[in-house]
Amino acid sequence: MTETSSQRVSEALGDWRRSHHCSQLRITDVDREVCLMGWVQFRRDHGGLIFIDLRDLNGRTQVVFNPEINAEAHARAHVLRSEYVLAVQGVVRARPEGMRNAALPTGDVEVEVRSWKLLNSAKTPPFPIEERVEVTESTRLEYRYLDLRRPQCTRNMIVRHKATQAFRDFLNREGFLELETPILTKSTPEGARDFLVPSRPNPGAFYALPQSPQLFKQLFMVAGMDRYYQVVRCFRDEDLRADRQPEFTQIDLELSFADQAQVMELAEAMIRHVFKETLDIALPNPFPRLTHAQAMHDYGVDKPDIRFDLLLHDVTDIVAGSQFKLFAAAKLVKALVLPQGAGLSRNDIDQLTEFVKIYGAQGLAWIKIKADEWQSPIAKFLSPEERAGLTAALGLREGDIVFFQAAAPEIVNAALGNLRLELAERFDLVDKTRFQPVWITDFPLLEHDPDAQRWVARHHPFTSPQDGHEEIMVERPGEALAKAYDLCLNGYEVGGGSVRIHSAALQEQMFAALGIPEQEARGQFGFLLKALEFGAPPHAGIAFGLDRLVMLMTGSASIRDVIAFPKTQKASCLMTQAPSPVSTVQLRELGMKLREAVK
Amino acid sequence: MTETSSQRVSEALGDWRRSHHCSQLRITDVDREVCLMGWVQFRRDHGGLIFIDLRDLNGRTQVVFNPEINAEAHARAHVLRSEYVLAVQGVVRARPEGMRNAALPTGDVEVEVRSWKLLNSAKTPPFPIEERVEVTESTRLEYRYLDLRRPQCTRNMIVRHKATQAFRDFLNREGFLELETPILTKSTPEGARDFLVPSRPNPGAFYALPQSPQLFKQLFMVAGMDRYYQVVRCFRDEDLRADRQPEFTQIDLELSFADQAQVMELAEAMIRHVFKETLDIALPNPFPRLTHAQAMHDYGVDKPDIRFDLLLHDVTDIVAGSQFKLFAAAKLVKALVLPQGAGLSRNDIDQLTEFVKIYGAQGLAWIKIKADEWQSPIAKFLSPEERAGLTAALGLREGDIVFFQAAAPEIVNAALGNLRLELAERFDLVDKTRFQPVWITDFPLLEHDPDAQRWVARHHPFTSPQDGHEEIMVERPGEALAKAYDLCLNGYEVGGGSVRIHSAALQEQMFAALGIPEQEARGQFGFLLKALEFGAPPHAGIAFGLDRLVMLMTGSASIRDVIAFPKTQKASCLMTQAPSPVSTVQLRELGMKLREAVK
Repeated sequence: MTETSSQRVSEALGDWRRSHHCSQLRITDVDREVCLMGWVQFRRDHGGLIFIDLRDLNGRTQVVFNPEINAEAHARAHVLRSEYVLAVQGVVRARPEGMRNAALPTGDVEVEVRSWKLLNSAKTPPFPIEERVEVTESTRLEYRYLDLRRPQCTRNMIVRHKATQAFRDFLNREGFLELETPILTKSTPEGARDFLVPSRPNPGAFYALPQSPQLFKQLFMVAGMDRYYQVVRCFRDEDLRADRQPEFTQIDLELSFADQAQVMELAEAMIRHVFKETLDIALPNPFPRLTHAQAMHDYGVDKPDIRFDLLLHDVTDIVAGSQFKLFAAAKLVKALVLPQGAGLSRNDIDQLTEFVKIYGAQGLAWIKIKADEWQSPIAKFLSPEERAGLTAALGLREGDIVFFQAAAPEIVNAALGNLRLELAERFDLVDKTRFQPVWITDFPLLEHDPDAQRWVARHHPFTSPQDGHEEIMVERPGEALAKAYDLCLNGYEVGGGSVRIHSAALQEQMFAALGIPEQEARGQFGFLLKALEFGAPPHAGIAFGLDRLVMLMTGSASIRDVIAFPKTQKASCLMTQAPSPVSTVQLRELGMKLREAVK
Repeated sequence: MTETSSQRVSEALGDWRRSHHCSQLRITDVDREVCLMGWVQFRRDHGGLIFIDLRDLNGRTQVVFNPEINAEAHARAHVLRSEYVLAVQGVVRARPEGMRNAALPTGDVEVEVRSWKLLNSAKTPPFPIEERVEVTESTRLEYRYLDLRRPQCTRNMIVRHKATQAFRDFLNREGFLELETPILTKSTPEGARDFLVPSRPNPGAFYALPQSPQLFKQLFMVAGMDRYYQVVRCFRDEDLRADRQPEFTQIDLELSFADQAQVMELAEAMIRHVFKETLDIALPNPFPRLTHAQAMHDYGVDKPDIRFDLLLHDVTDIVAGSQFKLFAAAKLVKALVLPQGAGLSRNDIDQLTEFVKIYGAQGLAWIKIKADEWQSPIAKFLSPEERAGLTAALGLREGDIVFFQAAAPEIVNAALGNLRLELAERFDLVDKTRFQPVWITDFPLLEHDPDAQRWVARHHPFTSPQDGHEEIMVERPGEALAKAYDLCLNGYEVGGGSVRIHSAALQEQMFAALGIPEQEARGQFGFLLKALEFGAPPHAGIAFGLDRLVMLMTGSASIRDVIAFPKTQKASCLMTQAPSPVSTVQLRELGMKLREAVK
């Protein structure tokens, strides 16, 4: 049937009001007069009747147009197409036996239409509004308002909402104040990844969008606000990796008069509450804890997925004198056993070798433990003592395969740590329905930046050294540990925090350890140093990445799936075409112009 | 006593944990061992004892250092100064009779110190941490972290927190989803007051910071999200008037399948809930309503303070033939009676005349109603009929004074509407403890912009005309009314909303009525027009200014008092010195440079 423009004219709501959502009606509602509003999921004509599945945010209800009830209403219904917007008034009826749909909460009933209004028509959408769609992500993002109608996307938004409220409920009960920090903040020369915003009344001067509210939340503690939290937008102007967005949301909190133990205890209880309230999932109590050193030793990474074993083993000592020169010469040699993996093909091993090269590995040594021999290109170099040592240390059994990395520790850990994850993925070693948090503690305070040839803060320069490490921080920077802690979940870092420096003198010492000249420190962070002199209480905090957390909670592949209007990896919005060029007049008003080279 | 650096060394928290806040202890806690932490409000030495008022966010507790309990703890306490940060462990004691302080919730008790730690020392603050301080606002803003410690500022933050949570609680219960909209959005040529943000990966392209999430919230409705809300930061880069900030916070909501009546009903219930929960104040139910025309007629302004009368009266017809040429010639003549105001001095009247000139008035005609005469420079021009007409229309009584404005309607209304407020202020006609909301409805859809010589949307171009006004909008733009509504409170606009256009055709018609060429409309708002074609439901919404509302709730003089880290009228932060210059390197990376003229 061809649509005519008159058929597509939308009718006014008038005094119609919804009586129910599309997921509410049950067999107990039979004979009730109702008014539903929603979208046509699909229409089918059957035995002289027209059936519509009417959909809203909450669910679906079957709606029937029967010519014997209202001939005109039935006749007009032939115009209906998918995604048309309707209001229907009618009476709830039990579906005939055999026609019930146990899969649908409203599947026992249908609404027999007395009258209806066409609230709006719809063009045919570029993809069907269904659970799974065969369409590129760019089309989904261009039509995000249609993509969001799909059940999975809708559910993601609802889970995000529920999780956010669960965070707030918990923190409100714990006596936190939700306080807002500015989005137009001070730009610093250090902030290479700050978004800059020119200020019209102050030509030549710029704000920066905050990468985090770190300094403001510390100032709240100086201000005596005791316990602060905020669900806060943060910004980073960088080349986007697969799973980053230029703006992202943090659950940010800070406590006065609290130490690391108190923050971890509180944050842990909070995360348990959020999972319970949002997904009805009970997380372990308490969460397991690993020191950073232990995590690196056993898992090769600082955000381990501990849902499965496959631990890394340090075998440096065992092969220290080996005839296999690569092993003998390496600073660190580690092994990873895949139990009963000796069946891997040459091709499999080649693929894994390519995989570890991503992480800087030169290659991938391996040994298959067969009944009669160690099958391996390197087996011949290994002495009986070395074989015995490896067998004992690694608990080798017939049918296993062992992988080795021998190189600088960063490479060994990155290569085997990620190989571990890759093997788990390939051989389905992970229970994907499980959520397994783990705390990582005792991080190094500083790390050496080989490019800048100086020490930089591993978390940020406001992180407190551990007790007694104040001098180590200056004398042997690489050995100083921080009062810092990350929460990891299923191999992702979902939260991180620290005890902060609350003494101006120690903060100045930290800037010195980082090689920031006093004048520069005063210029950039003078307001913090000043504030610390007026009675700053001991304080500590933590921040959680809401996008990441909701991604994991919903089993989504990307944080883009849980952000209502995300940007692409090129940081653009395919729906609105932001960012976009602006007029010269606008730039002139800001005292700016484009560099010629730009074109 | 001189401070030595060793005395100022801060001690570690160790395993000390607070047992109570500083407002919790009561006479029933006597003999309890407690641990309190907070700031020294003041110290006094008396009869060999040292008394400290220890303060935290919640209140104060008296703490006593007694040499007979712990001589060393007492001796060390001589170092204590205002704003030092302490942890004390001790025992709750009843204060001696006669020493109790009924003004303080903890005034019946004190804590006898067993041991204590100096958590941090403090320089002498630039102003005392007290309710009222004699200090410039610029000093308060420079040391905002100290200003916020003052009881009034602290209370403002707590009220803001409570109000925000009350909004959320209400909306969560009403089935709204809190959904986040982007802060990096599309810039439009129209957006003369947009903050612009250059995008590093897209040289020459800019984001804009949103003045409101208007389009995104409409897209949420198209996306089937049904009921959306957000406590959202908005931005406006303009010369700041007394009570504006470059960033401000809105309580923003939108409903599908809802009309004006439903939104107003819900918003009204929400505001009542927020006042009840936050301040335990019962607002009227229902809120009174005025049409825009009525508000302008009676109050001269579209955000009337209806806590007092002093209505404006249209007397144009009465004086239409007057010998007083100014009255006879004017398009509109209005009068305002100040009952028993005939005692105003010449000087008073001169001041009021100067006052109305702010609003474009040429002068201020007045008449004092005396027992035997109308005392006035203009009385001699008024005929007995005119006097009789005025007396009847204005209900004039002996001792009154009447003010007149005769000019273009905008000037008459602005001058007398604001004079009305000024008189109320001067003569204390307002009950300042009262909160009086009023809805203003039936706004004009369009208004003529004399500068641009074209019609512009009075609210925004997405506002629906009233039913039947679709054609009026095109044919007689000045007469079309909008489905728009504002909520005013005590003379401030605190909220505003509208039913939105949900038909692409009507939206295009609106752009045409605004003289926006089709191509330009497509370029700027194409994504909205496209979205409206895919089954947009009828929808409507409203947004409340949180800063303004909390300012009124706390009786503050400025929104700066209820924003944690506000900016000045020059849009700068006196604490951090934002905005500030950035390096040429940073600008070059963004493909930008400063215009020479800037220096």
